[in-house]
Amino acid sequence: MAQQHNNLDLFFYPSSVALVGASSRTGPAALNVLEQMLNSGYQGRIYPVNPRGGVILGLPVHASVTDIAEPVDLAVVATPRTEVPAVVRQCVAKGIKAVLIITQGFADANDRTGQELHREIMAAIAGTQTRLVGPNTIGLVNSLINLHTSFIEFDFRTAPVGLICQSGIFVNAADDFSGGVGIGVDIGNSVDIGFTECLEYLAARPEIKVINIHMEGLREGRDFLAAARRITPHKPVLVLKTGATEEGARAVCSHSGSMAGADDVFTAAFAQSGIIRVDQAARFAGLNRTLTTYRSMRGRRVGLITVSGGAGIMAADAAGTYGLEIANFSPATMAALQEMFPDWMSPGNPADIWPAAMARGYREVLTAALDKMLADDAVDAVLCNTTAYLDPDTDPQNLVGPINEVAARYPHKPTAVWTIGPHKTAYAAKYAGGAVVAYSSPDEAMYCLSRLYYYHSAVKGGISDALNEEQPAANSGFGTVQTILATALRAGRTVLDYEALDILEAYGIPVVRRYLARSREEAASLAGILGYPLVMKIASPDVPHKSDWGGVLLNITSAEQAAQAYQQIEDQIRSRLPEVRMDGIMLQRQAAGSVEVILGARRDPQFGPVLVYGLGGIYTELVRDVSCRVAPVSGAAALAMMKETCSYPILSGARGREAVDIKAVADCLVNLGLLLRDHPEIAEADINPLLVTAAGCLAVDALMVLAGDDDE
Amino acid sequence: MAQQHNNLDLFFYPSSVALVGASSRTGPAALNVLEQMLNSGYQGRIYPVNPRGGVILGLPVHASVTDIAEPVDLAVVATPRTEVPAVVRQCVAKGIKAVLIITQGFADANDRTGQELHREIMAAIAGTQTRLVGPNTIGLVNSLINLHTSFIEFDFRTAPVGLICQSGIFVNAADDFSGGVGIGVDIGNSVDIGFTECLEYLAARPEIKVINIHMEGLREGRDFLAAARRITPHKPVLVLKTGATEEGARAVCSHSGSMAGADDVFTAAFAQSGIIRVDQAARFAGLNRTLTTYRSMRGRRVGLITVSGGAGIMAADAAGTYGLEIANFSPATMAALQEMFPDWMSPGNPADIWPAAMARGYREVLTAALDKMLADDAVDAVLCNTTAYLDPDTDPQNLVGPINEVAARYPHKPTAVWTIGPHKTAYAAKYAGGAVVAYSSPDEAMYCLSRLYYYHSAVKGGISDALNEEQPAANSGFGTVQTILATALRAGRTVLDYEALDILEAYGIPVVRRYLARSREEAASLAGILGYPLVMKIASPDVPHKSDWGGVLLNITSAEQAAQAYQQIEDQIRSRLPEVRMDGIMLQRQAAGSVEVILGARRDPQFGPVLVYGLGGIYTELVRDVSCRVAPVSGAAALAMMKETCSYPILSGARGREAVDIKAVADCLVNLGLLLRDHPEIAEADINPLLVTAAGCLAVDALMVLAGDDDE
Repeated sequence: MAQQHNNLDLFFYPSSVALVGASSRTGPAALNVLEQMLNSGYQGRIYPVNPRGGVILGLPVHASVTDIAEPVDLAVVATPRTEVPAVVRQCVAKGIKAVLIITQGFADANDRTGQELHREIMAAIAGTQTRLVGPNTIGLVNSLINLHTSFIEFDFRTAPVGLICQSGIFVNAADDFSGGVGIGVDIGNSVDIGFTECLEYLAARPEIKVINIHMEGLREGRDFLAAARRITPHKPVLVLKTGATEEGARAVCSHSGSMAGADDVFTAAFAQSGIIRVDQAARFAGLNRTLTTYRSMRGRRVGLITVSGGAGIMAADAAGTYGLEIANFSPATMAALQEMFPDWMSPGNPADIWPAAMARGYREVLTAALDKMLADDAVDAVLCNTTAYLDPDTDPQNLVGPINEVAARYPHKPTAVWTIGPHKTAYAAKYAGGAVVAYSSPDEAMYCLSRLYYYHSAVKGGISDALNEEQPAANSGFGTVQTILATALRAGRTVLDYEALDILEAYGIPVVRRYLARSREEAASLAGILGYPLVMKIASPDVPHKSDWGGVLLNITSAEQAAQAYQQIEDQIRSRLPEVRMDGIMLQRQAAGSVEVILGARRDPQFGPVLVYGLGGIYTELVRDVSCRVAPVSGAAALAMMKETCSYPILSGARGREAVDIKAVADCLVNLGLLLRDHPEIAEADINPLLVTAAGCLAVDALMVLAGDDDE
Repeated sequence: MAQQHNNLDLFFYPSSVALVGASSRTGPAALNVLEQMLNSGYQGRIYPVNPRGGVILGLPVHASVTDIAEPVDLAVVATPRTEVPAVVRQCVAKGIKAVLIITQGFADANDRTGQELHREIMAAIAGTQTRLVGPNTIGLVNSLINLHTSFIEFDFRTAPVGLICQSGIFVNAADDFSGGVGIGVDIGNSVDIGFTECLEYLAARPEIKVINIHMEGLREGRDFLAAARRITPHKPVLVLKTGATEEGARAVCSHSGSMAGADDVFTAAFAQSGIIRVDQAARFAGLNRTLTTYRSMRGRRVGLITVSGGAGIMAADAAGTYGLEIANFSPATMAALQEMFPDWMSPGNPADIWPAAMARGYREVLTAALDKMLADDAVDAVLCNTTAYLDPDTDPQNLVGPINEVAARYPHKPTAVWTIGPHKTAYAAKYAGGAVVAYSSPDEAMYCLSRLYYYHSAVKGGISDALNEEQPAANSGFGTVQTILATALRAGRTVLDYEALDILEAYGIPVVRRYLARSREEAASLAGILGYPLVMKIASPDVPHKSDWGGVLLNITSAEQAAQAYQQIEDQIRSRLPEVRMDGIMLQRQAAGSVEVILGARRDPQFGPVLVYGLGGIYTELVRDVSCRVAPVSGAAALAMMKETCSYPILSGARGREAVDIKAVADCLVNLGLLLRDHPEIAEADINPLLVTAAGCLAVDALMVLAGDDDE
């Protein structure tokens, strides 16, 4: 859609709202939007609209939006679906620039009527100043002005959280999922306003400190990533991408570019844009508190204070689960702890303060231990395990105040608390708004701290692993590739094998020396030029698994053998596959690598060109030890791709192996990414294998599929 | 310890309790055990004991347990540690058979005094009828008789849950962790009564329906597994084993038997005994409700009812995460749903009932959809996502009753609920005690249902993957192995290489044909007998990495070459390693496999012999794609070990590969397990590689370490 205006303030901060399709049924569970809106305390003007007219809940009802005398900022539409297009046209006529359609049954419907109504709505706003949220949405919420458009009771709990979702439950149960909300919107079918615009809007709002997104699907992949990349260094963006499992199940298929599934690409794309991907809705609330309470976290090293040895071990386990480290306290901290501890007990991390607390007082020992740990240069954060056995209002051991006091003195080191006991929820509430976050479990605490550290180390201040848009606009091999592709497509060929090597070579990827022979004699003479040993392979667009058809011969060591091999391959193919085209027979120097890797590329429906990397061989696929990135990538990102696979030590020289030329492989990934960026005709590309030695790398076999291939 | 009696009723159902070390300080946070005990409503007699005498909380104080006139079932000791041995001796003198020591600072202390006090206590009960729980424990709880010995406020919430832990927090915050408790005990240092006895006690108590264990360490590994294996088919046992991460980090080292870390062995051992291992304390409560509410779950296929499309997708994701399947509804179910749904909406699974509910009534549609799904043979369980936007007491759409009613008609198919909204906790309480469990998230629901299915399919009625104790008592090769081991140990040799192959052969593991030559001439003539090509290797206990020292030569194809090779190896070793012993040079037929696998074995400190299996090569170790079992194993268990690795398809014939003789490998695992069971002298054994073809398998290299080797 053309974007006529992008002032989403009309949606989120309207001065007046027309409610089209206002119902006269009221009371609990009546699902009356008007009633909810009135109950919520919104201070703007509200105009109920219903052709039946009359008065609902004390407000006069207009027959149509065009009957409203005053200007209207936002129209909320909840009529039966067949009436919606007419209502939208009336909104346009009235000059309403913000329309939100709650009604279901448009592009989301399975019937023809739904699709037709969808087109009618789009036609109604085309070329106008009117923008749409929805249809098929619970609507929006702005807790800051007590506005919400949901038909369900809404408990406003204001939090500096911006929310974009594709399911109303996140709006209606924001308290549950995100721990409250500031501005939120269910984009529904998002036929006009979608993720990217809402993200940019929330990013610009100073009252919003963190953005939560629930995403089922994404259309504008590249735009969304570009926006996120600009925003995330300044404001954390958390995404719950659902539908992960189903897509993951489809992942394993035969092309190496498909070794990474659709969901893996989302994971990579989010990371490349500084987005923190969450794995469950239940993660949002803790992360929001964490990211809005703590100013930073500068390292992975965690100090643990516990009133129970067992709890300390659980906390240490959780730290390990999320890649945090158990701090090694400095001698000064150890000495300070030993002074408090009974003689028979050596301090450590976790520090079990219980016996010391019994002897010297719980508050004294806990606050002193916390202070010493936070002052220790070897500590980046502290998790205190404390008791919540008594009501915090009457508990003589309520240490919320003292802990907050110590924590506030170390603003760059998070002090986290995990309370145990029946009053844990009441205790958590006491910590709200202070310098400390109270978590429900050590698992939640360590998960959130690990994401906090990730945000401050890898996202804030710039994303090192970003999509590399500063690559040269065109490669010197651009023209060569254009010619090869044009020739192939003119000939109706959409699967390239030997030409694929030429294309790779044109983009600077080292390729094995080779010649195409078109006769026995030519094979013999080209063999002499290449040197031995040689491999010979049928060159044909119609023989995908060449060796299965006798199309490959190895270990050719003389011109005579080369001539014989030519004949043998030709005879095999002619007799077994008489219909196929034969472009000749390829002669290659037989090469060997210390290691073989696979580079793949494909076009993702959301994000465009995607690179996949893995060690060669079937095992890589079985254990799914591959990495992927949205392309193109920088050299650093390519190296990071390689490093995140488990197989990396095989390349870097584990167990006395010879280290191979890792940079050469990274360069190939960079160039393969540029190739796909520059040539949209290439739908898929595989280099399998790329031979790698200490001296460099060499592509010996490659396959490309061009767009338009029906087999793909 | 000798077990003088095992009537733990004296601990858990005492008629009278002496509290030694009773404190006169009372009130909130006074940590007064006596006060807590009195407050909790325990109906037995309580005798405070303190040399200072007097009256505490209205009870006369005895100077010593021996001053109590009546018999005492249980003594609870909370004196300073130095007084404990004397107290225990007095308890023995008084004839008290159950003593629980709260005091810390014994075997758990780092000082000599602690260790001495520990020995004094053990000496005090040796040969007596007195049994100990603790020291270093918060004590025990029996909610059924309002007894607890903790110094912290305790909110009794009775549940049919038995609890054994090594940290008081599980007792004190049982409500948090296990969702209430029936009988529970913190075994502390467990110097006398430990996990196994408590497990057996709880297993025998009819009021306990599920057992929760928090375990930091385990001494009596085999006994515990044997007890668990007997118990789990009748009563579910859940274990949280902490310290997982730390141990996991130590796992990767050079022996293939160590490819599986200590924590992996716990995982395997628990699975072999039918124990459900939980990964966080927060898992207990949901599992306890699940296992005590639902009678069974007969398959993995889940039906999903949702009031929000987005929630349905989240539930489907969670099902996939835990290995459950989204049911394909029968045509009858689909037709019934379509009848309720609006025309424009096709039903599916998840079934989003919201539009239908709007048109035909929430209760009508939800209960009808639930009933149809539960009646469907293609459905094993249903998760309903429902709203909790209003207080359940006033919510006109409170469907707790109707949902329970439908659920109760299908006792063998769990109906689970996940509510969304601010009143979810209140709603969960309404479901308690009925036929339905209300979960806090789809993740919790699917996790719990997956474990329920696992329990009913794999544990209840017998564990198929059990430790195989029905193996023959001794192998026909037993004597041969005894002789080889005795000879080696007499010679002071604890690392065996070529003899290791002899040992394996004696236990029925196919081993490459080979001869030990002691001269050039012998090498030449033995070569002729073996046939070609050959491999020759130095036979020496002192050369571990033979090829690094020129001790291995390949591709020997004639008697003459064999003689030369003998000389060459001998010269290399003599010049480079003049000090080493040379037993001769081994000649082996050079063999090749379609696949190479590694079989390892070692002795685990908790569980004894452990088997490890993986594909050959460094990659297996990098991706940790190995499986392990406590040995010995049955053939079926050995096969299951192989199948649970990602590499299994490489053996079973993935991608057109030739399938190899999997059963031959399984037989080797069985025999290797018997070997370690029968010969405790063998500390470690590695077969690396075992060559596998379609026709069988062949061990070509092996190493054994005998107990007593200081290098290990």
